[in-house]
Amino acid sequence: MTQAAHPVARLRDSLQTIGLDGWYIGREDMFQGEEVPPSEERLAFVSGFTGSAGYGVVLAESAALFSDGRYTLQMASQSDAALWSTHTLPDASLSGWLKQADGAGKRIGVDPCLVTVAGFRRLEKSCRDAGATLVAHADNPVDAIWGTARPQAGAARPFRMPDRVAGQSMADKLAALDKKLADAGADAVVISRVDAVNWLTNIRGHDLANTPVNLVFALYHRENGLLLLGDIASLAPVMEGDLANEAAMAPLDQFDALIDPRAGYGDDAVIWFEPASLPQAMHAPLAACGARLVEKDCPVTAMKALKNAAELAGTRRAHIEDGAVMVRFLHWLSTGGGDGMTETAIADHLLDLRQRSPRFIASSFDTICGSGPNGAIVHYRAIAGQDRELQQDSLLLVDSGAHYHDGTTDITRTVAIGTPDADMCDAFTAVLRAHIAVALARFPAGTTGQQIDALARAPMWAAGLDYAHGTGHGVGHVLQVHEGPASISKRGTTALAPGMLLSNEPGCYRAGAWGIRTETLVVVTAPDAQGFSGFETVTLCPIDRRLIDAALLLPAERAWLDDYHAMVRKQLTPELAGEDDVLAWLEAACAPL
Amino acid sequence: MTQAAHPVARLRDSLQTIGLDGWYIGREDMFQGEEVPPSEERLAFVSGFTGSAGYGVVLAESAALFSDGRYTLQMASQSDAALWSTHTLPDASLSGWLKQADGAGKRIGVDPCLVTVAGFRRLEKSCRDAGATLVAHADNPVDAIWGTARPQAGAARPFRMPDRVAGQSMADKLAALDKKLADAGADAVVISRVDAVNWLTNIRGHDLANTPVNLVFALYHRENGLLLLGDIASLAPVMEGDLANEAAMAPLDQFDALIDPRAGYGDDAVIWFEPASLPQAMHAPLAACGARLVEKDCPVTAMKALKNAAELAGTRRAHIEDGAVMVRFLHWLSTGGGDGMTETAIADHLLDLRQRSPRFIASSFDTICGSGPNGAIVHYRAIAGQDRELQQDSLLLVDSGAHYHDGTTDITRTVAIGTPDADMCDAFTAVLRAHIAVALARFPAGTTGQQIDALARAPMWAAGLDYAHGTGHGVGHVLQVHEGPASISKRGTTALAPGMLLSNEPGCYRAGAWGIRTETLVVVTAPDAQGFSGFETVTLCPIDRRLIDAALLLPAERAWLDDYHAMVRKQLTPELAGEDDVLAWLEAACAPL
Repeated sequence: MTQAAHPVARLRDSLQTIGLDGWYIGREDMFQGEEVPPSEERLAFVSGFTGSAGYGVVLAESAALFSDGRYTLQMASQSDAALWSTHTLPDASLSGWLKQADGAGKRIGVDPCLVTVAGFRRLEKSCRDAGATLVAHADNPVDAIWGTARPQAGAARPFRMPDRVAGQSMADKLAALDKKLADAGADAVVISRVDAVNWLTNIRGHDLANTPVNLVFALYHRENGLLLLGDIASLAPVMEGDLANEAAMAPLDQFDALIDPRAGYGDDAVIWFEPASLPQAMHAPLAACGARLVEKDCPVTAMKALKNAAELAGTRRAHIEDGAVMVRFLHWLSTGGGDGMTETAIADHLLDLRQRSPRFIASSFDTICGSGPNGAIVHYRAIAGQDRELQQDSLLLVDSGAHYHDGTTDITRTVAIGTPDADMCDAFTAVLRAHIAVALARFPAGTTGQQIDALARAPMWAAGLDYAHGTGHGVGHVLQVHEGPASISKRGTTALAPGMLLSNEPGCYRAGAWGIRTETLVVVTAPDAQGFSGFETVTLCPIDRRLIDAALLLPAERAWLDDYHAMVRKQLTPELAGEDDVLAWLEAACAPL
Repeated sequence: MTQAAHPVARLRDSLQTIGLDGWYIGREDMFQGEEVPPSEERLAFVSGFTGSAGYGVVLAESAALFSDGRYTLQMASQSDAALWSTHTLPDASLSGWLKQADGAGKRIGVDPCLVTVAGFRRLEKSCRDAGATLVAHADNPVDAIWGTARPQAGAARPFRMPDRVAGQSMADKLAALDKKLADAGADAVVISRVDAVNWLTNIRGHDLANTPVNLVFALYHRENGLLLLGDIASLAPVMEGDLANEAAMAPLDQFDALIDPRAGYGDDAVIWFEPASLPQAMHAPLAACGARLVEKDCPVTAMKALKNAAELAGTRRAHIEDGAVMVRFLHWLSTGGGDGMTETAIADHLLDLRQRSPRFIASSFDTICGSGPNGAIVHYRAIAGQDRELQQDSLLLVDSGAHYHDGTTDITRTVAIGTPDADMCDAFTAVLRAHIAVALARFPAGTTGQQIDALARAPMWAAGLDYAHGTGHGVGHVLQVHEGPASISKRGTTALAPGMLLSNEPGCYRAGAWGIRTETLVVVTAPDAQGFSGFETVTLCPIDRRLIDAALLLPAERAWLDDYHAMVRKQLTPELAGEDDVLAWLEAACAPL
């Protein structure tokens, strides 16, 4: 039996057969989420690189991997240097590499299902800048090579979210969407965001490990109604009740046939789509049908960002449950429960505590558990066997969260293990001041996340500190833990509106020593009598008082912390009834400064 | 003798003769500055409207005036309603008006000398959206109609700024510019900003009332050197020394002939120009010469924004002189000097105090002197005969400044006349906190004015207040009092860099009652040991302690104010030697809170 040739060699053979000079392999699947199922990990299959962002390009004589600075080392360590050169974005560029790799005149193929319209345009430009040509080629040679070794997709387990939890029936959501189309003068919209479709139809699922959604797109036509586009067999269990009555379903590969002038997609129709999410493969039928195309952001994304009263009530309830879990975890740590344990074992313990809840669906992302210097790696993922044991007299940073049936959490706490030094306390207090600056912010309608981001950074800057990430991201309701359109960051140009759920997570990182981040989720409040909004903090978990230098806090900051701790104690005490040791720890952890 | 027909009627006759259906009349002259000489006030001549921004369009059957909300009332009161409809931007739009005025198919003319490349593109799009066509027509019919009634341009009085005041010789500036071109791969640049040319050549002049510049463009070619483009006779007095040796001069109307392939502007040349300032009329020869055109912001604008040590020293000195003037003025007000006087008379007194300096060149803008409710009109200009007498038990807002030989000032103080009420003090204190938030800001390299703007607004927001203008603008060195590229505002996307001179002027306005603004100029400081910058406040003048509610200030804010007042007193005392009454007032005004 001969050993199978390396995928890169086989890919080169395939390219020669199909008449292409190169192939682009992104990390995204058709649904463009942050998370992809193992069956879609093409980049890892071909290159070995498992980072959450990046792409590869294979030419006949050379191959290159590209990712951002988080993955510079990982790209090199996971890929075969004899086959791949590795490049860090944005310093490197595809066009730059193509130029020096004699890309001029070459035809580079890409699977049009796996790249968005906007992404295709960017890739096209990069190729053109190097004198190469991008070619959409639907028959993906990587999949043919992968063959039977390719992991199977897991069994679909869709479920409905009850209207009382969703807070709005699908019919009401469709009516609101219909009005948006009417206002925009559009007849139809392609909804090419999975979380938007799941929210619109009040369904959830298990197609991904940490994102409780079904991988499904939709087409809404003001006359024809809603059509779900996906795997009919998978979704069959939920196609009943209002969903069966008010929506139809078609396989995604029939999209081309559905976009038919006779079905309302002709010359006089206006079709709305989002270039940032629509797969390039779905653009061709739209461009061909004769309708006028309008390129705009997904209308459902803006709708679902504004949580309704039931979504907020569920979110608050989930945070009581999750807060109790975190208090049990921190109490366990405080009693030396994690001593001598590895980061992955500690994270597993936290997961175990969460999984005891009957309402637990999944973690909202892989827990970041960084002890000592690992805490300074912002997107650190501990890998069993390669991770660090809990380090004494250091800091432990734990960033975790879960989807419950009624809400999603995302919380970071940094705690002292042993005795912290003054430097840690100074930085922790600066981060706390940044955190409180957001928590106490009051702002008029129209204020953007960009503006709030500056308020968070000001106390860090005053201490000569900063952090190289955003202050906060939008959070979905039992959907994606990262959702648009709003963020609290330098790029946050969307106005913050009442009902938006966002994280508040300033941090401070000392390379080789420690990382500090304090994260809660906050809800933008309704305008007060003077028309100003603020943030309601919904995360309930003590902030380590041992790391706070109270002398550095303003009276209003100190009052916020004491009020917050009083609220945490009040809300979590009933949840922890009977757990006397944990309650005693909670009381001490929530004592006024 | 028959009365001459109205300019609109005569313009319509002209349009018929030249075969156009309409004419666009902007407020700008060829040099696109905020200020235009009387000989360029075409919009006022045709329509009567004298606002500082806006435009008119005359069709055969209708005519429309457009300006922003500041001028809604003024447009209506100054124009003949039988001839003109008036429209407020951005609610109204040119294309919207053209559509309802049957603009479809019409040919609208514009003088290509009076509109920039970017402006022409915008206008073209507006016309196209309404089915009309924009036509560049060089022979301006308004000028023909104006004829001998048109004001004469004033006599030019150019002068050199000594190198010791400018801080850098023209040769050094040209070398730095040359490097910028080399880095950008450009052979030549058209400098179509008057302040940039005056700065680059260390000349100043009197072509405008409040902007001490000569109206001149320039062309810099890496091989041919610098060519000033303007009125040769006017500039002759300064064409000596290094200017005569290192620069040539040509009339602006020879630009077409100068852009010649044989002179280095052929197929293999790269020419840099700024679409936001280059007149459309100068674009045609560039487009025709065969060179590759690069559209980028003016390179000199970014250079001159970073003030050198001599410019900063001159600026500080000018602020000592101007601070002494302001203290004399405020002392005079405090002794009832302005009682019973009108706003214009009070402003005249302040001008008179400034004019006593041998270094005074001009006001840096028309003084805003608003008593009581007039203070709430942000861009209020008192007009003799229509203005208000100083109102007792109210606030007086005075925003003024001057160009001295070595620096430019821009200061706003709001003072209590009589007894202020609690509402005034609350708002004044909130504005002071916003002011101090900027003064005390510390920030890393790359921080934008947008971010600092948010820091200023936070204490206003906390008090339920805000202001509908930016927090600060760039200030030129004896040039334009408003200069780019940086600003402290919601639109301030330029990074603040050491040496930039900006205003810090938060405010609060109660319509029908009062206006409050506290303005100083600040310099971005060099990075400290940790790489952070801050602001040095260079304006020296007490802030009215009678309007401050000290209980609302944080300890650090109170300390800033006391330190600031101590510095003001220390710096101004020698300047006011012998003026015992004024000194006594200064001492009381600068006492710690």
